[in-house]
Amino acid sequence: MFAPVAGELGEVDGLLHGVAAESQGSLSPLLGHVLASGKRLRAALVLLSGRLFARGPAPPPLLELAAAVEILHAATLVHDDIVDQSPYRRGRQTLHQLTPAAVSVLAGDLLLARAVSRVTGIGDDRITRIFADTIARMCEGQIRESLQAHRAAAASSSEAGDERSRYFAVIEQKTSALCAASCMMPALLMGATADQREAIRIYGLNLGFAFQIVDDVLDFTGDAGTLGKPTGSDLRQGLLTLPSILYLEENTARRAGGPDDRAGGNAVLRYLAGERTEQALRRAVRAVAASSASDSAIAEARRRMEIGRVALLTLPSGVMRDALLSLSRTITERRR
Amino acid sequence: MFAPVAGELGEVDGLLHGVAAESQGSLSPLLGHVLASGKRLRAALVLLSGRLFARGPAPPPLLELAAAVEILHAATLVHDDIVDQSPYRRGRQTLHQLTPAAVSVLAGDLLLARAVSRVTGIGDDRITRIFADTIARMCEGQIRESLQAHRAAAASSSEAGDERSRYFAVIEQKTSALCAASCMMPALLMGATADQREAIRIYGLNLGFAFQIVDDVLDFTGDAGTLGKPTGSDLRQGLLTLPSILYLEENTARRAGGPDDRAGGNAVLRYLAGERTEQALRRAVRAVAASSASDSAIAEARRRMEIGRVALLTLPSGVMRDALLSLSRTITERRR
Repeated sequence: MFAPVAGELGEVDGLLHGVAAESQGSLSPLLGHVLASGKRLRAALVLLSGRLFARGPAPPPLLELAAAVEILHAATLVHDDIVDQSPYRRGRQTLHQLTPAAVSVLAGDLLLARAVSRVTGIGDDRITRIFADTIARMCEGQIRESLQAHRAAAASSSEAGDERSRYFAVIEQKTSALCAASCMMPALLMGATADQREAIRIYGLNLGFAFQIVDDVLDFTGDAGTLGKPTGSDLRQGLLTLPSILYLEENTARRAGGPDDRAGGNAVLRYLAGERTEQALRRAVRAVAASSASDSAIAEARRRMEIGRVALLTLPSGVMRDALLSLSRTITERRR
Repeated sequence: MFAPVAGELGEVDGLLHGVAAESQGSLSPLLGHVLASGKRLRAALVLLSGRLFARGPAPPPLLELAAAVEILHAATLVHDDIVDQSPYRRGRQTLHQLTPAAVSVLAGDLLLARAVSRVTGIGDDRITRIFADTIARMCEGQIRESLQAHRAAAASSSEAGDERSRYFAVIEQKTSALCAASCMMPALLMGATADQREAIRIYGLNLGFAFQIVDDVLDFTGDAGTLGKPTGSDLRQGLLTLPSILYLEENTARRAGGPDDRAGGNAVLRYLAGERTEQALRRAVRAVAASSASDSAIAEARRRMEIGRVALLTLPSGVMRDALLSLSRTITERRR
């Protein structure tokens, strides 16, 4: 999928390695740990989108932008893992397991600063502005989600439609915004027209939606070994995502026995409103995974991705567009 | 001292208020809490330095820059307070006491992003680059300090000269860098010459040194009520600052009885190497406060400030320069 830009992704890896290597003493291996792994989805989006609009290999600013986007992504993961208290990511220990949480907070800040520095080095003020605004949007999304987790019991009994729109608002900020920017900024850099920029932005935005929805489904249906992290992590934090929201909608609609029957056959409500044992969590995760809610969520991801694919068809055909199209197909099929 | 720019500082306060007010729901009062207080030292540096090089009131970009610098400063304080586990700042509860630490981490990130966005809005790439690089330097300084705190027992027995140069390297990054940038960026914005920019940068850099040294002395000699936070907080974290480093130098040099006598009359070593009780901490704080180490540290702050004052004398005379000169005198006299 990333084949047309495989060589350039290697160069981006080199830039990321440099960020870790140039850091002082004991910090260097820590940043290396964070920057060394990852799908490089966002870097690939930058490279594929950029080269969609210009012949020839990626110029240095495009590589810089790809590196900056990956550094930013790594920075947010470091802080998110602290916030979520996640012990593992991508099958490896998270940074705050390896060093005091305090140092992890600051290491995330440093990565954020390095990402911004990198982008300012490109010297295009429009790009820098989009980049900074995207960071702010991502933070807002994460904060919203975090505040939501802390009032989950209340949320689980509110209007289902509200929950759904809240969910999409959160993931648009925390995930889709950066995917959209990763497609749109390189288009701007490579001289795409306003219509073209809008089309590729819509592709990235919907790819972000699809990606996050699948992520949230895998947290119920996935295999912990393949995922490299335990399942059920969202629900454990009291966080409702599309699969559990759809599950709650289905199972709350079906109940007829009045308030007492509320949590009757509803394993998610039983977990959220009752004693939050590991056993109750496992039961809830299995219930959602086995229900039609997971399939409905995947169907929603496919619908979003379809919008993105249509937007892509207005753009120049060729190897790069083919790669973006095939990426859009695999994104809803992935198992990790 | 800030009188020549008092009106403009009011406008900056308005901009900061706007940042909090425009944030979504429950986040707004939290950001308001963080942004509402403060000495506004860095905003004042921006305004005074900028107006030193241009007649007439501060143009909008200068006000934007002043706001951005204060937002950045607030962002770093939010994260530093998490890192240091400080319950109070400026006599008020710190953010992580009012909301889950997770939300505080993200709120700091959001402020950082807003600060960068604000600067990119000015549309001068040179300024944006300095700003981003300054953030990275501040993070590096904080990380160094944090890593140092975690190996303080070892540090207390290392070469005294090493400790001193390590201390200055840390505060140059964590405090002086932003003060220097707060003076240099507005000079750049207002068209100062390269020599003038270097002179005002040296002033800011040394003002930062002096400010931080006095801060560190007050952590031993200050009054908790006046400071708005408990004293001894650095030592409690196992952090050596100039007063305790000088105290260790004096009291280690004086001892003659060999290794057994090491911690003999040395309350700081006794605290760091022994049982870290509140009583032992209080004894160490009193010992440093009563020793000549505190006076020597203040003398060092005055020497640094003197360098800054000389640099200032090469710059245009007038109301703004007078204010910067008088600021440089009060900075080493302050009690909070």
